[in-house]
Amino acid sequence: MNVDELVRTPAWWIEEDSSEPGIVVSSRVRLARNIRGAAYPGWAGEEECERIWKELLPILSDLEVLDSPLHAEMGELENIDKQILFERHLISREHAEKGKGSGVVARGDERLAIMVNEEDHLRLQSMRPGLALDEVWKEIDDVDSAVEQQVRFAFGVKLGYLTACPSNVGTGLRASVMLHLPGLVLMNDMNPIIKGMGKIGLAVRGLWGEGTEATGNMFQISNQITLGEREKDIILELEQIVLEVVEHEKNARIRLLQEREMLTRDHVGRAYGILTNAHILTSKEALDQLSGLRLGIDLNILDSLDGRVVDELLLLTQPGHLQKLEGRRLKPKERDRARAAQVRSRLLDAKKPALRRRKSQTSHE
Amino acid sequence: MNVDELVRTPAWWIEEDSSEPGIVVSSRVRLARNIRGAAYPGWAGEEECERIWKELLPILSDLEVLDSPLHAEMGELENIDKQILFERHLISREHAEKGKGSGVVARGDERLAIMVNEEDHLRLQSMRPGLALDEVWKEIDDVDSAVEQQVRFAFGVKLGYLTACPSNVGTGLRASVMLHLPGLVLMNDMNPIIKGMGKIGLAVRGLWGEGTEATGNMFQISNQITLGEREKDIILELEQIVLEVVEHEKNARIRLLQEREMLTRDHVGRAYGILTNAHILTSKEALDQLSGLRLGIDLNILDSLDGRVVDELLLLTQPGHLQKLEGRRLKPKERDRARAAQVRSRLLDAKKPALRRRKSQTSHE
Repeated sequence: MNVDELVRTPAWWIEEDSSEPGIVVSSRVRLARNIRGAAYPGWAGEEECERIWKELLPILSDLEVLDSPLHAEMGELENIDKQILFERHLISREHAEKGKGSGVVARGDERLAIMVNEEDHLRLQSMRPGLALDEVWKEIDDVDSAVEQQVRFAFGVKLGYLTACPSNVGTGLRASVMLHLPGLVLMNDMNPIIKGMGKIGLAVRGLWGEGTEATGNMFQISNQITLGEREKDIILELEQIVLEVVEHEKNARIRLLQEREMLTRDHVGRAYGILTNAHILTSKEALDQLSGLRLGIDLNILDSLDGRVVDELLLLTQPGHLQKLEGRRLKPKERDRARAAQVRSRLLDAKKPALRRRKSQTSHE
Repeated sequence: MNVDELVRTPAWWIEEDSSEPGIVVSSRVRLARNIRGAAYPGWAGEEECERIWKELLPILSDLEVLDSPLHAEMGELENIDKQILFERHLISREHAEKGKGSGVVARGDERLAIMVNEEDHLRLQSMRPGLALDEVWKEIDDVDSAVEQQVRFAFGVKLGYLTACPSNVGTGLRASVMLHLPGLVLMNDMNPIIKGMGKIGLAVRGLWGEGTEATGNMFQISNQITLGEREKDIILELEQIVLEVVEHEKNARIRLLQEREMLTRDHVGRAYGILTNAHILTSKEALDQLSGLRLGIDLNILDSLDGRVVDELLLLTQPGHLQKLEGRRLKPKERDRARAAQVRSRLLDAKKPALRRRKSQTSHE
């Protein structure tokens, strides 16, 4: 897998042209699957894991739907490359810590990825920008069927698909949607929504999944229950809730402009002022301030700025991407400086088209 | 006194052309004097105060050195006008709260001012930009002599000048210097200096004198002891200490650039970014961020910005000046918005010359 090449392309969740304000960032469905008769990765030794990886790799690589995929064994990757796969949501934090016998296979456009020997033998996932749960579900369902033609999955008649952790038994399905909810956060309406989700069996997590904080006003909503419900119902239920949350966020944004216009303009303005002038930026602050910028663009307060720049910066300011971009290892303090420099120059560059438009004859684009 | 006219002129401490980095903002000496045989203002009734004010006003107005001065009785001033006199350091907070029988007489250039019936019958003060203790002392000494030719001061052979508060008895002199010390604050070196001052009989206060916080990294250093020392010695001692503090500040600024360059650039950059983009600014935040801007100019990090804009903003962002500028009374929240708007537009205007220089043929000034 050539991670250097990967890092130069926009992430899978960045849309070429998004007309809707970016409330739903992306949709994802993953299926947990295991091979019948083999020990779960946590119990299997390195040798058995290697055997499984070697058995699965050609099968997965040949899948038509994956279209000559990228693939890499964890043991062969530099830490920084693992970090990049993690930042692009292609592998989990836990998977990045693995070595020999664990790997990932992904389609070139990154919208399909299969982790081998993470918690389960197979974690099949499909991702897309925006709200597209139905599409990603259909896509991963096809991948699942294709794999199942060649691999005998651990399956019980009563329980369904068997998984390493009981929380995934049954469908093995986790559907999740990433939402950008600055309106609800600024109106102090987010906490009751998070509580409400818990009551109806949905989990709310941060940008990087389980156990992470909601940095940058990004929230991941996903189903908790995998047993006793049909896949389509899980997807449908989540989609309905997400649409409700989107409505709440839209209302919150309207109320922000009606009831707290100055506060909102101040919030957005400060984000822009800090991002274009700071010389030290932590990863967390970058995400938080970029969220303010994104809100400003969505609300047409910062209309001279292209939203894609913000989307790109959300990724490029992450430690792995940042170091690849700079072409060398950076200590955390060096990263904070490099991050600020990247953000400053890219935001100032992004302002240029407005200037160029005014005097098109001297355009050098 | 026409405060409307006053508010349109730069404050007395803003220098036309200051070549030295602005560490010493201003110098001031005030003398406390009382009329022999009259009760101190705090004990005298309104009638006696009025009698004293009426007696003193023609004497003070005729002083040659005051050059047809401005004058106003506190009872005749609107609250906002009192606030402006306070913000220009012409009267004290306590004096502003007084009414009939208390007043102020000041030279047109504001560098000489006499409060009548503040804590003492007379508070004579002379102020100048930069370090000029000797000059202000000589000037106020002349005013003192001129007044003493016509008014019999309360004076004891043993104690010297008698004052309402024992802390002023003797010389009645308080010399003070306003210093901008962001370097020492950012290097965390300010606390030991403040402690050291206390040990040698000097007081360190904030921008608005006694009991105020050191907002905007502004510190006022003044003598505590007024008894048993000659005026000239008090002045000389203070000047020496101030020169030492200035050296410390200069060193701190050098170390800032050597040891914490990025931190300093970040501090200055954020100040600029926030001030040019915020839509809500409290008075305290404005002072703090303007301090960052001032530091950036002094260190040539923000060289395209004229230091006088910052000096003017330090005054114009104060509640009284702000309301005069806007031409109406403003509630605190409205002030925070008006302040942010003033700061934004003035800082962006101040950037214009740099832009004009680049394409002088299309200049439309």
